[in-house]
Amino acid sequence: MKIGLIGLGKMGGNMRERIRRAGHEVVGFDFNPDVTDVPTLEALVESLEAPRLVWVMVPHGAPTSSTVAKLGDLLSPGDLVIDGGNSRFTEDFVNDELLAGKGIGYLDCGVSGGIWGLENGYGLMVGGRDEHVELAMPIFDALRPEGPRDEGFVHAGDIGAGHYTKMVHNGIEYGLMAAYAEGYELLEAKDIVKNVPGAFKAWSRGTVVRSWLLDLMVKALEENPTLEGVSDYTADSGEGRWTVEEAIANSVPMPVISASLFARFASRQQASPTMQAVAALRGQFGGHQVMT
Amino acid sequence: MKIGLIGLGKMGGNMRERIRRAGHEVVGFDFNPDVTDVPTLEALVESLEAPRLVWVMVPHGAPTSSTVAKLGDLLSPGDLVIDGGNSRFTEDFVNDELLAGKGIGYLDCGVSGGIWGLENGYGLMVGGRDEHVELAMPIFDALRPEGPRDEGFVHAGDIGAGHYTKMVHNGIEYGLMAAYAEGYELLEAKDIVKNVPGAFKAWSRGTVVRSWLLDLMVKALEENPTLEGVSDYTADSGEGRWTVEEAIANSVPMPVISASLFARFASRQQASPTMQAVAALRGQFGGHQVMT
Amino acid sequence: MKIGLIGLGKMGGNMRERIRRAGHEVVGFDFNPDVTDVPTLEALVESLEAPRLVWVMVPHGAPTSSTVAKLGDLLSPGDLVIDGGNSRFTEDFVNDELLAGKGIGYLDCGVSGGIWGLENGYGLMVGGRDEHVELAMPIFDALRPEGPRDEGFVHAGDIGAGHYTKMVHNGIEYGLMAAYAEGYELLEAKDIVKNVPGAFKAWSRGTVVRSWLLDLMVKALEENPTLEGVSDYTADSGEGRWTVEEAIANSVPMPVISASLFARFASRQQASPTMQAVAALRGQFGGHQVMT
Amino acid sequence: MKIGLIGLGKMGGNMRERIRRAGHEVVGFDFNPDVTDVPTLEALVESLEAPRLVWVMVPHGAPTSSTVAKLGDLLSPGDLVIDGGNSRFTEDFVNDELLAGKGIGYLDCGVSGGIWGLENGYGLMVGGRDEHVELAMPIFDALRPEGPRDEGFVHAGDIGAGHYTKMVHNGIEYGLMAAYAEGYELLEAKDIVKNVPGAFKAWSRGTVVRSWLLDLMVKALEENPTLEGVSDYTADSGEGRWTVEEAIANSVPMPVISASLFARFASRQQASPTMQAVAALRGQFGGHQVMT
Repeated sequence: MKIGLIGLGKMGGNMRERIRRAGHEVVGFDFNPDVTDVPTLEALVESLEAPRLVWVMVPHGAPTSSTVAKLGDLLSPGDLVIDGGNSRFTEDFVNDELLAGKGIGYLDCGVSGGIWGLENGYGLMVGGRDEHVELAMPIFDALRPEGPRDEGFVHAGDIGAGHYTKMVHNGIEYGLMAAYAEGYELLEAKDIVKNVPGAFKAWSRGTVVRSWLLDLMVKALEENPTLEGVSDYTADSGEGRWTVEEAIANSVPMPVISASLFARFASRQQASPTMQAVAALRGQFGGHQVMT
Repeated sequence: MKIGLIGLGKMGGNMRERIRRAGHEVVGFDFNPDVTDVPTLEALVESLEAPRLVWVMVPHGAPTSSTVAKLGDLLSPGDLVIDGGNSRFTEDFVNDELLAGKGIGYLDCGVSGGIWGLENGYGLMVGGRDEHVELAMPIFDALRPEGPRDEGFVHAGDIGAGHYTKMVHNGIEYGLMAAYAEGYELLEAKDIVKNVPGAFKAWSRGTVVRSWLLDLMVKALEENPTLEGVSDYTADSGEGRWTVEEAIANSVPMPVISASLFARFASRQQASPTMQAVAALRGQFGGHQVMT
Repeated sequence: MKIGLIGLGKMGGNMRERIRRAGHEVVGFDFNPDVTDVPTLEALVESLEAPRLVWVMVPHGAPTSSTVAKLGDLLSPGDLVIDGGNSRFTEDFVNDELLAGKGIGYLDCGVSGGIWGLENGYGLMVGGRDEHVELAMPIFDALRPEGPRDEGFVHAGDIGAGHYTKMVHNGIEYGLMAAYAEGYELLEAKDIVKNVPGAFKAWSRGTVVRSWLLDLMVKALEENPTLEGVSDYTADSGEGRWTVEEAIANSVPMPVISASLFARFASRQQASPTMQAVAALRGQFGGHQVMT
Repeated sequence: MKIGLIGLGKMGGNMRERIRRAGHEVVGFDFNPDVTDVPTLEALVESLEAPRLVWVMVPHGAPTSSTVAKLGDLLSPGDLVIDGGNSRFTEDFVNDELLAGKGIGYLDCGVSGGIWGLENGYGLMVGGRDEHVELAMPIFDALRPEGPRDEGFVHAGDIGAGHYTKMVHNGIEYGLMAAYAEGYELLEAKDIVKNVPGAFKAWSRGTVVRSWLLDLMVKALEENPTLEGVSDYTADSGEGRWTVEEAIANSVPMPVISASLFARFASRQQASPTMQAVAALRGQFGGHQVMT
């Protein structure tokens, strides 16, 4: 099979490699001349044969929507576009409507795996119509981990369901990481506990909390047993926010995942205006000194 | 009426004054010779007539329990001890048992009001037996705010119920302060909002959120409209912790008040070990740089 | 002064009355023929003299935006529209742009006070331009509580800032109510506490937690001391959600107010799917029975 | 090696079997005559040779402390007691002091693994002195999972550190389960998502959230795709509470794990008194009907 792949960054570059290793032909395009296979998007489209399959792997938001718009102009009815980026699921409705008006198919695909994906394969969550999923299945099979298809791939539902599922996946990830991290802090805080890295490592087998994230935590603590010098400044990349926004939109109580999101926000503040206000309030009681 | 008052610090000193203004006689004892009325606890006890009423107003924990123990030795059956300090309600069970064995009565009394209490009166929450409450009522009436008794005083229940009620009062206070403070931060964060102090002040009348704490917030913002230079370091004084511990002991979900407690803990950390761990975990993904 | 007032429901009807009591003339319009002063919106507009001032007090969303659109057609340059409803602040940007294109002024005004407003006055939070605020000031003065203007009124900032401030006000309200309510539950759960309504009442004077909401809580408990038969089903009206959405949009940690919002969501669930999943997971451990 | 094992319930029985499979001799005692190897505790002690090693595997609290006390009477200096039950770490201090006074060694050991432990091995977390750990190592090696010792066993620190580490392990477990469960609810709530069980299964390989708990979730959803009929009533077994109590005692912010604990409390309430109070408060506003 032959596909076009737009966006050859950290993720896209590795995905091109993994698809090729599976025996498919990939024509990659990127604005970076060092990595691109063709000089222009037009050239990419021309290099493919109908029905063309083009995988978009660029930053979400404007880069993705403008790429999809351009593809809408360049592709023909019966072709298929897959957005594999970190788009919000609501953008899929827009993309699909635009392309459907021109007879071009659309799938949204949430992709998990990071830099480990090249070797381990990528977890794939797809939204869209059955016939489009079928068309792209050889590529999904190339990208996903070895083993039974349904352990690394799902056709989760209608347009948007792929990115939605990936969004929830990341929301869960926020909560999982925070749970391990709170446990880490509590162990660190206790004087009778002398071997915190060893405690995490001992959970690797036979316990309820064993997981890939635990394995990463073990590695992190082997490299730096007290996380000395590690900044607590923690970014967030969109999916966590969207998850909580969707919880609100759907009246779903989400105390755990929202708490893990807010902790990230707090980690980036030099001082907490909320706690400045609490301190100022206490100062007004008269008995509590306000520090400055 | 004539009572003994042990502990003449910020709270006890003002309370002595307020009781005296109500026409009662107060013999105060404090280790600080500048403020004490009598040189020793023995002298205080001797200066009173049976049935003696002694109000203890010293720091909770060891100072209170040792004072109660000494009073157990000095007082006689039929006398009455009131612990008005910030004791945990569980200490009341111990105090009461010790004194009851000697025929001495005991009441626990949570006192709210801070430095404003001298003029405004103190909110009083009492636990213990009816006959003891009756005996001490003239003093309670002297201390509580003007107006109907039940708007500033309650006999909340059995031994411990006074401190328990005060503990819950303070737990609520934590939640209230955090709610105002989070609102403050959100207003501050928004560019279209130009007058945050004015917004708080405009809530002073006619709105659902008007309160004494709001008035304090207005004052704080009048003195320092952006809380510039105010440290976000915020202490906590025991009652907040006990409240959440009691929530756990009684299987009561307490997401709001516990969140306000945890925010205080976080305000005192230079760096959050939890978020260091989250950052380190993300670093292990490979795609996220860990800052140091 | 003479103004038009659209929407004469529970809020609008009382506001008409309060403005009239202040000596102004109000022409009210409502689809309900029993309460309307004029048969049509056109008649309302015709009854006013330039520069016309029209206050919109209809449900937010489509009713408000269609009313503003119609006013855009009927009014003339120099006239002024005030949206006093519970609109999301983002709608103000749309309304203002539409009207500004026709030379018509726009203010957004958050109104607090509920059914108590007629007698006590309404807390007012306004966004928009100085000249428009000045024009409408006699009406604001009529509506707000007696006393200094800045204790019941604020020109909070640019277009949208009025509704934004009201939104934050309501978010704070969610947190305050939850704090009192968690305290209530903890008191109720404790056997040594015998007089929960009395405890709340005793906080009415002289304590840190005294507030209008506390007074309402006292009333509620006087009517129904154990809240027997009161359903825990609790609606939410938009502002709480918007507050947390804005916290997310502005990277503001908001653990307390979000917890109070999620508790409302949970109160409306027959069963919690989250806890069904936790129970099912525990069932898989093998040692815990899953109840059905 | 030959050891005594007290308590042959679900856990203890399987552990006896696993130790035996490793080639050691186990003398088990239980009040249940169907499973016990010896009729009395005395007989168990007599059947062992000095230095005797006795593993206690009975319910925490009174059963464990009375067993340890009896062993204190029966054993001799140089013998070693291991508490492998779910004791609070604070009980270890008491047990150790009692036995140390008689020259008997003590270790506390947190054991994870549930009914899967017999085949997979048990994760072991141990607190106490080096020489005692060394003495018991053959038994630890028999119980822990195959593979490197440090992936299933840790000598975490001083007396109490084993149970402390196990407590934190369980606290983390609460958070992890809640994170998956909240994600489940959000997926279920969304109309475009048609295959929730498939989404979880697709995370099994190649994603960040893969774990043993995820595998259990997949199984649960394979058996019951919408968790139909599963009660949301969820018990908690002590360690979650202790974890949050320790967070409070050590001033560690713990928003995520505490939220997961409170959600369990809430799952067991027919109605939430907190939300009854919120509803009653809203009823006092005048505009909101209180449902009964």
